[in-house]
Amino acid sequence: MEEKKCKLLFKVEGGEDISVFASFGESLLDAAKRANLALDAPCAGNGTCGKCRVKLLAGSVKSEPNRHISPEEFAQGYRLACASAVVSDVTVLVPATARAYQNRIRVSGKGDVRERAVFENLQKELRAMGLEKDSGLELINLEIENPRGGDGMADRERLLRKIAGNFPGSSPLTGLMPDKIGFSLHALRKLPMALRLSGSAGYSGGESRPAENSVSSLTVLLRRESGTKTGVTILDLFPAGAASPPPVIAGLAIDIGTTTVSALMADLLTGEILAAGSAGNGQIRYGADVISRIIESARPGGLERLRRAVTEECLVPLIRDMSKTAGLLPENIYRVAAAANTTMTHLFMGVNPEYLRLEPYVPAFFESGALKSADMNLGVHPDAELILAPAIGSYVGGDISAGVFASMLFKKETLSLFIDLGTNGELALGNSEFLMSCACSAGPAFEGGDISCGMRATDGAIEACRIDADTMEPVITVIGAEGQKPDAAQKAVGICGSGLIDLIGELFRCGIINARGKFIREGKRIRRDEWGGASYVAAFARDTANGRDVALSEADIDNFIRAKGAIFSAIRTMLAVLDLGVEAIDDVYVAGGIGGGINMGQAIRIGMFPKLPAEKYHYIGNSSLHGAYAMLTARRAGEMVVEISRGMTYLELSTHPGYMDEFVAACFLPHTNGALFAEGEAAT
Amino acid sequence: MEEKKCKLLFKVEGGEDISVFASFGESLLDAAKRANLALDAPCAGNGTCGKCRVKLLAGSVKSEPNRHISPEEFAQGYRLACASAVVSDVTVLVPATARAYQNRIRVSGKGDVRERAVFENLQKELRAMGLEKDSGLELINLEIENPRGGDGMADRERLLRKIAGNFPGSSPLTGLMPDKIGFSLHALRKLPMALRLSGSAGYSGGESRPAENSVSSLTVLLRRESGTKTGVTILDLFPAGAASPPPVIAGLAIDIGTTTVSALMADLLTGEILAAGSAGNGQIRYGADVISRIIESARPGGLERLRRAVTEECLVPLIRDMSKTAGLLPENIYRVAAAANTTMTHLFMGVNPEYLRLEPYVPAFFESGALKSADMNLGVHPDAELILAPAIGSYVGGDISAGVFASMLFKKETLSLFIDLGTNGELALGNSEFLMSCACSAGPAFEGGDISCGMRATDGAIEACRIDADTMEPVITVIGAEGQKPDAAQKAVGICGSGLIDLIGELFRCGIINARGKFIREGKRIRRDEWGGASYVAAFARDTANGRDVALSEADIDNFIRAKGAIFSAIRTMLAVLDLGVEAIDDVYVAGGIGGGINMGQAIRIGMFPKLPAEKYHYIGNSSLHGAYAMLTARRAGEMVVEISRGMTYLELSTHPGYMDEFVAACFLPHTNGALFAEGEAAT
Repeated sequence: MEEKKCKLLFKVEGGEDISVFASFGESLLDAAKRANLALDAPCAGNGTCGKCRVKLLAGSVKSEPNRHISPEEFAQGYRLACASAVVSDVTVLVPATARAYQNRIRVSGKGDVRERAVFENLQKELRAMGLEKDSGLELINLEIENPRGGDGMADRERLLRKIAGNFPGSSPLTGLMPDKIGFSLHALRKLPMALRLSGSAGYSGGESRPAENSVSSLTVLLRRESGTKTGVTILDLFPAGAASPPPVIAGLAIDIGTTTVSALMADLLTGEILAAGSAGNGQIRYGADVISRIIESARPGGLERLRRAVTEECLVPLIRDMSKTAGLLPENIYRVAAAANTTMTHLFMGVNPEYLRLEPYVPAFFESGALKSADMNLGVHPDAELILAPAIGSYVGGDISAGVFASMLFKKETLSLFIDLGTNGELALGNSEFLMSCACSAGPAFEGGDISCGMRATDGAIEACRIDADTMEPVITVIGAEGQKPDAAQKAVGICGSGLIDLIGELFRCGIINARGKFIREGKRIRRDEWGGASYVAAFARDTANGRDVALSEADIDNFIRAKGAIFSAIRTMLAVLDLGVEAIDDVYVAGGIGGGINMGQAIRIGMFPKLPAEKYHYIGNSSLHGAYAMLTARRAGEMVVEISRGMTYLELSTHPGYMDEFVAACFLPHTNGALFAEGEAAT
Repeated sequence: MEEKKCKLLFKVEGGEDISVFASFGESLLDAAKRANLALDAPCAGNGTCGKCRVKLLAGSVKSEPNRHISPEEFAQGYRLACASAVVSDVTVLVPATARAYQNRIRVSGKGDVRERAVFENLQKELRAMGLEKDSGLELINLEIENPRGGDGMADRERLLRKIAGNFPGSSPLTGLMPDKIGFSLHALRKLPMALRLSGSAGYSGGESRPAENSVSSLTVLLRRESGTKTGVTILDLFPAGAASPPPVIAGLAIDIGTTTVSALMADLLTGEILAAGSAGNGQIRYGADVISRIIESARPGGLERLRRAVTEECLVPLIRDMSKTAGLLPENIYRVAAAANTTMTHLFMGVNPEYLRLEPYVPAFFESGALKSADMNLGVHPDAELILAPAIGSYVGGDISAGVFASMLFKKETLSLFIDLGTNGELALGNSEFLMSCACSAGPAFEGGDISCGMRATDGAIEACRIDADTMEPVITVIGAEGQKPDAAQKAVGICGSGLIDLIGELFRCGIINARGKFIREGKRIRRDEWGGASYVAAFARDTANGRDVALSEADIDNFIRAKGAIFSAIRTMLAVLDLGVEAIDDVYVAGGIGGGINMGQAIRIGMFPKLPAEKYHYIGNSSLHGAYAMLTARRAGEMVVEISRGMTYLELSTHPGYMDEFVAACFLPHTNGALFAEGEAAT
């Protein structure tokens, strides 16, 4: 019997219509995936996150009302794509809110203001350590004698002879043999025209025959190579002279997050930031967490699909847009440094990550070795060096080796705790003597994933909240454009990680929820649905940007409690291994997509962070990106990140005896062992 | 006024129909070029070669009968595509004979037998010099301890540690630091599966968890690097064990000729030839000679079109077919060496060759520097080293530095002359003390271009000929399949270079043509056309493979005389510069596409080569390809080719005083100065 096929038409808000055939009974989400239409589905189609809401316009699907779709909404045609089986030809409206974050590229000149403050601090520190403007790239200006009839020297050899012979006396290049000079094909292709269009008097109007005894002026971009056959490589060249502005030598630092890819473009010679940008990781349509991605990678063609999703479909357009903002071409990017967790690094490189999730959890590689951008088709200068922060273990990646560098904890004699709240929770503990790391499956809750109204810390996110214990009325703070200080005019869209911590902390403080996260009071802000669940409405539809309530349900709180429990139990387990108490920790560095608005006191109140004085906590933003920036701008920083990664012990929690008990105990507000958080309120 | 467009339909014999719009008045040839349909047009559309014969099926073109199309043929609808202006919608039949040589890929296991004899001689010589099996590639077998829980080492680092620590004691790799080992991304991508699918007892059925204390057996392909940071690079790896045959490590030598691309695939570890092949250079649709190509490269998009024509459209399919013959995948090719003239090298690299043809004739480069195959998208192993023979001057390229190496003249104390009869004539003169080279625009006549019945020295080519002086009847020798000794059953298709020399020599010896190449006798084999030209029919239509006469016209003879005159005058000029006479030459090495059947005595008779005893002449086949083969299989040979190129003087004939007079004097049979060829017949 021939299989019945149904014709689907997706009418995409703000995009083009997409048609695809679906098998009878296939979910709308799976059909969309096949049609390369990325719907937001951080729960990977389990029906729990409620983000893939679409609206049926014609035809029918098999689906039922659920906690994410009220009976009224159901009557209006709203459905979860993941929970709707196709049973006829169907036309479906895909609202912008249902589309995966991947399509949202954000680029600005300087980036988010609060991240920037953190970042400028790091820049100062790097300067103090002498770790800046040392990318190995330099510009030199040359005057090259033009050919005469019978001299018979080719352009390339003429240039090499000049560089080798006449390099400024003080330089280590003096007397360099032409054979020791590498020549990028990209530069070689530009050479004949660059020489003949140079601002010199040699050639007039692109004529082939130069004036007698004339010279051409060239600006040459060299990269000094460490310990290779070629002492230097000519990466690029530019006609010099009055009419030619000096070229900008740009570099790119990238943090490849499971959810979001962030990047900074810097002028490698001046250190100036040229552009900042972020884009959703295009892989998100294959699931929010690394495990879903690894499973997808094992399907036929999956590895290549995932590789393309993060390169061609995400990094390449992001780099193009950032270059435009900076007024450059992508080929003017001559060095790239990237940091990512171990799974993302494998997928970016197109290396099978399958054994990361199977016992005994073995990565294919920790260090990538020497790479150039052409290997990855990034569209930047093909011979740009591509430096990847090395991984430490299966679930502690280059984001942590780079992040630990950015935190500078490896330089301190005192003991520091480093917590990266990404889609996975990754932690490090140590000082200048030792370093230990571990990872816990916190899930994407800190970045707003798996939370029905969750979102990244960006415009429209509720990032802080106060609740009046009597009236239960909240005062919320919403992030304005470019991370500007809360803007009264900015309406809420959702809640980001720091907002979730605040909101749950306040609900708990006011006795609205109990230690298990269940609602124990009633009021106009408390809603109960027919499935027995309750929610707290932080912003009513009339006050939100999208006309829908921003509310936190018991299921959301449950997800968040598991996430914070994973973090706290990981901290406890690491301390236990070292036989240390919480009080041994001198500083805590909190990094990740949770947002700069994080209230450390609230995080302690809900039992996410250990009870320590508030001044010991430091928010350090996207430390993975900042570490990549350091590696980008200073070669020595890259070596230090390698040293950090090689010297760090990796603690595998999933098989560590005692971790599971710690986790279960931490899945309460604040903890089953209340004594850990007793003796008075922590400072807020 | 809107331009009138005509719709063309090309019905291609043995191919798919192609439609294209043409401007009113555009030639069929130009329209075909735009439609990416390569018609044979060595004269670049000047109406002189007669090779782009097509047949009009419907519609009309503006065209007239000419020497290549008889009135009968004209009545049947035959036209020269280059001389037919489109004036209506047209349907045209493109016979297989009109299609450019580019589409004809020929692959065999061992190559042409006569070339092979020459080649085996060279192989012997290389062996005697110790120049073989030294590509820097080697296979090692390793047993790698499988991971245990808690050991926490990634696959890559596990392998590197093994190679660095446990390399056989006698090897220079002992104690190598893992940091000194490069790792090809291609190999890294294979690593996780290769380890887990190895024939060892470690894993059963691809399970992730190995047996306790088990090992995996791997065969690793290493390349030893000279003087780089990475002492060795891991290029590839293969599961080892009983079920896995040892991998074949192949390399490819290429001669990129203006007309034909030839290649040899060799097993780099055993030295065995795995396949031989050739294909027409896809650039030929832009003209037969390098000047037409340079002009095309200056048009918008032209450089990239030409680069693709020789890589994606020619080398990639050739490599694919040769790999199939050899039973390999293209990615099993780990090293590539290529030789080509200066223009071809520029176009292959995608570097602007424009200044090669403009005074003062400056190439963009002599030496390409380090390249890898991924830079050129050849489809072989992406990290395969790509070695290009360096050029010597604008018109003496890597084909000559490689060819001079293959001739071994640089080793001899006696004086040798090297003549490469390609689309350009290139010559070298010298010994172990000095080397001089020059180029002359001989045109493609030696490879059958610009000759109405000309063809390459391949199946169906008349390669030798005797004429009875009385009856004027010829006895012809036709090349059989794979260059086998003349096969009586093989019918003629055309005449190759050696056949042209023989035929013209015989016509002259028998007094059928005079010193200017004009017919001075009459007979059934002599045909005169209405334009006043005459031809000699070497094979009548009934005896040919394609049912058309194989005939040589005065125009053909004229072209050939100019070609041979260019060669002889170049030899004279070089000798004059050195103040030497012909008698100073001890050996003459003749290379190129002229074919192994060349009769040196005839070549002397027509005044192409100087009058020297026949035993001083040696046919050395495709010396450019053979030199590339030496560079492929022995790194030291590559260094020697570089030394040859750097040490060789380049004589620019086009501006050399006296050359023009020599040329004019040489455009007779045998020469205006008969004394040069006097005193008895040369040995045949």
